[in-house]
Amino acid sequence: MSGDRDNKVINRRRLLGTTAAAGVAGAAGSATVSQLVGPAEAQTRQQQQARQQARPAQQRYEVKPGELDEYYVFFSSGQSGEVRIYGLPSMRELMRVPVFNRDSATGWGQTNESLKVLTEGLTPESKEYLGKISQATFDAGDLHHPHPSFTDGTYDGRYLFANDKLNTRVCRIRLDVMKCDKIIQLPNQHTVHGLRVQKYPRTGYVFCNGEDRVPVPNDGRDLDKPENYRSIFTAVDGDSMGVAWQIIVDGNLDNVDADYQGKYAFATCYNSEGGVTLADMMAAEQDWVVIFNLKRIEDAVKRGDYREIGGVPVLDGTKGSPFTRYVPVPNSPHGINTAPDGIHVVANGKLSPTVTVFDVRKFDELFEDKIKPRDTVVAEPELGLGPLHTAYDGKGNAYTTLFIDSQVCKWNIEAAKRAFRGEKVNYIAQKLDVHYQPGHNHTSMGQTKEADGKWLISLNKFSKDRFLNVGPLKPENDQLIDISGDRMVLVHDGPSYAEPHDATIVHRSKINPVHAWKRDDPFFADAVKQAQADGVDLMADSKLVRDGNKVRVYMTSMAPQFGLEEFRVRQGDEVTVYVTNIDQVEDLTHGFAVINYGISMEVPPQATASVTFMAHRPGVHWYFCTWFCHAMHMEMKGRMLVEAQNA
Amino acid sequence: MSGDRDNKVINRRRLLGTTAAAGVAGAAGSATVSQLVGPAEAQTRQQQQARQQARPAQQRYEVKPGELDEYYVFFSSGQSGEVRIYGLPSMRELMRVPVFNRDSATGWGQTNESLKVLTEGLTPESKEYLGKISQATFDAGDLHHPHPSFTDGTYDGRYLFANDKLNTRVCRIRLDVMKCDKIIQLPNQHTVHGLRVQKYPRTGYVFCNGEDRVPVPNDGRDLDKPENYRSIFTAVDGDSMGVAWQIIVDGNLDNVDADYQGKYAFATCYNSEGGVTLADMMAAEQDWVVIFNLKRIEDAVKRGDYREIGGVPVLDGTKGSPFTRYVPVPNSPHGINTAPDGIHVVANGKLSPTVTVFDVRKFDELFEDKIKPRDTVVAEPELGLGPLHTAYDGKGNAYTTLFIDSQVCKWNIEAAKRAFRGEKVNYIAQKLDVHYQPGHNHTSMGQTKEADGKWLISLNKFSKDRFLNVGPLKPENDQLIDISGDRMVLVHDGPSYAEPHDATIVHRSKINPVHAWKRDDPFFADAVKQAQADGVDLMADSKLVRDGNKVRVYMTSMAPQFGLEEFRVRQGDEVTVYVTNIDQVEDLTHGFAVINYGISMEVPPQATASVTFMAHRPGVHWYFCTWFCHAMHMEMKGRMLVEAQNA
Repeated sequence: MSGDRDNKVINRRRLLGTTAAAGVAGAAGSATVSQLVGPAEAQTRQQQQARQQARPAQQRYEVKPGELDEYYVFFSSGQSGEVRIYGLPSMRELMRVPVFNRDSATGWGQTNESLKVLTEGLTPESKEYLGKISQATFDAGDLHHPHPSFTDGTYDGRYLFANDKLNTRVCRIRLDVMKCDKIIQLPNQHTVHGLRVQKYPRTGYVFCNGEDRVPVPNDGRDLDKPENYRSIFTAVDGDSMGVAWQIIVDGNLDNVDADYQGKYAFATCYNSEGGVTLADMMAAEQDWVVIFNLKRIEDAVKRGDYREIGGVPVLDGTKGSPFTRYVPVPNSPHGINTAPDGIHVVANGKLSPTVTVFDVRKFDELFEDKIKPRDTVVAEPELGLGPLHTAYDGKGNAYTTLFIDSQVCKWNIEAAKRAFRGEKVNYIAQKLDVHYQPGHNHTSMGQTKEADGKWLISLNKFSKDRFLNVGPLKPENDQLIDISGDRMVLVHDGPSYAEPHDATIVHRSKINPVHAWKRDDPFFADAVKQAQADGVDLMADSKLVRDGNKVRVYMTSMAPQFGLEEFRVRQGDEVTVYVTNIDQVEDLTHGFAVINYGISMEVPPQATASVTFMAHRPGVHWYFCTWFCHAMHMEMKGRMLVEAQNA
Repeated sequence: MSGDRDNKVINRRRLLGTTAAAGVAGAAGSATVSQLVGPAEAQTRQQQQARQQARPAQQRYEVKPGELDEYYVFFSSGQSGEVRIYGLPSMRELMRVPVFNRDSATGWGQTNESLKVLTEGLTPESKEYLGKISQATFDAGDLHHPHPSFTDGTYDGRYLFANDKLNTRVCRIRLDVMKCDKIIQLPNQHTVHGLRVQKYPRTGYVFCNGEDRVPVPNDGRDLDKPENYRSIFTAVDGDSMGVAWQIIVDGNLDNVDADYQGKYAFATCYNSEGGVTLADMMAAEQDWVVIFNLKRIEDAVKRGDYREIGGVPVLDGTKGSPFTRYVPVPNSPHGINTAPDGIHVVANGKLSPTVTVFDVRKFDELFEDKIKPRDTVVAEPELGLGPLHTAYDGKGNAYTTLFIDSQVCKWNIEAAKRAFRGEKVNYIAQKLDVHYQPGHNHTSMGQTKEADGKWLISLNKFSKDRFLNVGPLKPENDQLIDISGDRMVLVHDGPSYAEPHDATIVHRSKINPVHAWKRDDPFFADAVKQAQADGVDLMADSKLVRDGNKVRVYMTSMAPQFGLEEFRVRQGDEVTVYVTNIDQVEDLTHGFAVINYGISMEVPPQATASVTFMAHRPGVHWYFCTWFCHAMHMEMKGRMLVEAQNA
């Protein structure tokens, strides 16, 4: 059953090589239309563009002052390390959720509550490393793929999951309060790139692609033996945020998706060569899509058929294993996307102008060795240069980003299947210019069985001349496209900071956040527990408790006053300040900041937040409320009096 | 000349007391119209609103895909610590400029270049404190007032200045590259709140209000002697980013502005009581506007008539000094704004429903003691509840935010002056509801002599029900208002993250950023110097230089490859990686990130960036490019091989 010999694919591909490189390096970027499709089709396209410009938008896309958006969009932020919540169609950023980054406003990375989230899931090796450089946690991250939890094939409004490519972490964001409550660092694995979640029966698993190959364990051994390097695929349990299992694979995993049956996950896989240089990684003519058989893996874990490494069960899923199948596709495939029909899965060619369409109903037979890997392929349409990701409208159409062409290609799945069977049929419905070099794209509800075919976002990596010049670093450009009619219509250019890689569009009916925290929330349970031990009622008391060199300062906040207008400590004390916002009012967030101590944190309505610092600096230090809360907000302040050590 | 006895003002004020508090705490917030203005005027206003809703926008405010905005808006971000660049009228965020915050994407706070900016201007006391907690610099800030440099009364496109309320710092952003190049921490002073710049002949001075009163020096002395606390006003030299002079004042300085003649700066001042509790600060019936005589101060500094404290010249400007005048105004004034006519200055009442209008032409006579402080007041119109800031259209009209009323009030300066002289004249042109609780506002070019009267932004502190619910923490709401016609028209709700306090709208003709860095830029001159010492040509060479336990790794980056596909160090080495982006292409930024080391930095076109870290973690660690740069971007990576110490 070796996929290497099953090379129908190789005859169909067209390697791009230097053309691809030139196209991007030129930054004007896209090949001309006639280069791609020939003069005749180019003319047709110009006519289409003229028609398109003449017609009005197919649906309303202005959101007037005071009107609400219809969709939430959860954007990853790439190397910014946060999650961003937008409204659609207005494409306004409604909120930032700090995750792998440090956030000055909320004190994320400084409050005890956030440090617990950021540190408790780190591997022992990371804790040791961070300890040596006097840091509690990492200050940076690279957040790529934000995906909400599912129940029965659609979003259930519980959680959003995302990965950190920089430090091999996975986070969970609670959608009731829009804060990150859990972060786990994956052992054994070196980086997480692709991440998606189990769609059925529920999430369940969070699937995490290990991209880079390293020695396992990665402790200095085998530095120069790349043949001993391993790449790992991890299933995280989304409920416990622990590792359910890991499985070793060949090659570098790129993107991942899952089926609607709860039976399979599948990942694109490049560097089947196991190379460590660009030339090596590009050597072979084809790479793979790797399919994971969840039932077989679970059964093996259940019967103890695994090695435990780094405290988690690790299986062998390299070629030939019963747990996986490797389906050959053209060199360096990138995105992989399951269609809302529950049947089709598209792997995007990147260096091939084609995408490869699988029928998941054939995977059972593949694992039973009744068919060959390539027999699962039901279409392989040629779309244009640099296909990276595909989204769906739920009406049988697919929308594929063409990185090098700087276009979105709308094509029909059934027509592509007919063409694959030899019929002469045009499966391409439209190509729309985007600006420029699109990566991920996403349709409204398009990754669920409830895809509604209204909106498409194209996340473009270059913006160049589309916005006022802001210096050498330019924004990305997330463009909004109306797909509700026969033709795609570009309606909005959305500049964004470095660098959204992916987004998920969720109908507002699926999300129901609260306006104030509940007092029994686990997020600040440690503070509540400490207060109980100190005999302090957080909602009423403001007082200082000294415990040797440790000082705990409890205070309420209610606009425009803190419960304490002063407190006194000694130089060298370890001070923990607990602030409880007893205001009940919606949107009445307080802050607590200490001047020249660099302390700044958010205290949302009905929550307790705490921060610990060393009072190494003597003198009068005013603390103040950072969130404008009242006409007398400027006067909402107090004094921390730090007695000098020699006083 | 005591202003205390000059109490015309006191008869005119109306203290708000509990009404103000109730208005905000209710969060629905604004008093009803009839509470404020009586039923008759309320009816008129409803009619006005109906008219307003019926009329179309007075100018174009849609920016279609690919079109450019007409204005840059530089937003402060409050406790987020960054500066944000928006386009107007689209109100899209075009870029973030990290300043007092840590930024995961660019490595701000991690690269050697940014750490130099962040640390070299800190006071010795801060350096000592940070050293004790094993930190190089502060991780958080509270950036309030972004103001561009002037030449001859208008923007000259050189710099933007802003303050950090949290750690008493002032920053400078270069508008050619849109990066912060200098940060200074002010000695003696405890926090900077208000900041504005000299308008004429040029900037020149950056005026920095010390808000809170503390002992000087603040080393543990006089903790319990508030009578010995001092508040300080600082003039920073915007060219050298050093302190030009400081001057001790009475009370807490709030906001500041300067004239168009280059003679005076003036600040609102609350807590004339010198209190340390809310009750104390509210005790007196009036506070002040403090006027600074720049010529007299400069002459005193020139002749050495000052004390040197903390390495800078400090003058005494308390009441009775020749350098200052204290003009009584109602309790707790907030914003102060110079009109584009070069004549009028408005101090906003906050707890009084009035604003106080000064004529700067009278300040000469005031300092010559020919008139009394209040004789400089030429109008004191009553506008509504909670006036905080005033902006101008260059046509004689002023726009004042009413925090408690949640309105912007448009009024006419000349009409208000006639009313002040006793005429029966209606100076209020229109009140527009905003959503909700506005703080700062700003008009297009409105703080220059080139105010053009097209746009007004109202920066509202609460958004509540204006956007999809994103949990307990809500965005602010920066609303765009068309002021080009007779009536203000609200055209856009702009959600924003915590918490823009101020903004400056600059016509795009004033700003000319570059697309790539120049190789002789001082920003990375240290790296260039080190490379020269190591015999390395940064634009061509990729090599490792070992110097004992210090290792310097030089590499180029050009899509899709780093100059080195691997480098080797020993566990415990201090490693500095210098990456030089030799791509010339506009918008082709690279990044450099090291997996499980938390290292992530931006390398913009034609720039060198560097980062230093301890190789405490053995094993194979892949580094990769974080900014999508090429179809083969995913493959732009290499291996850092860290030999184990015991190997």
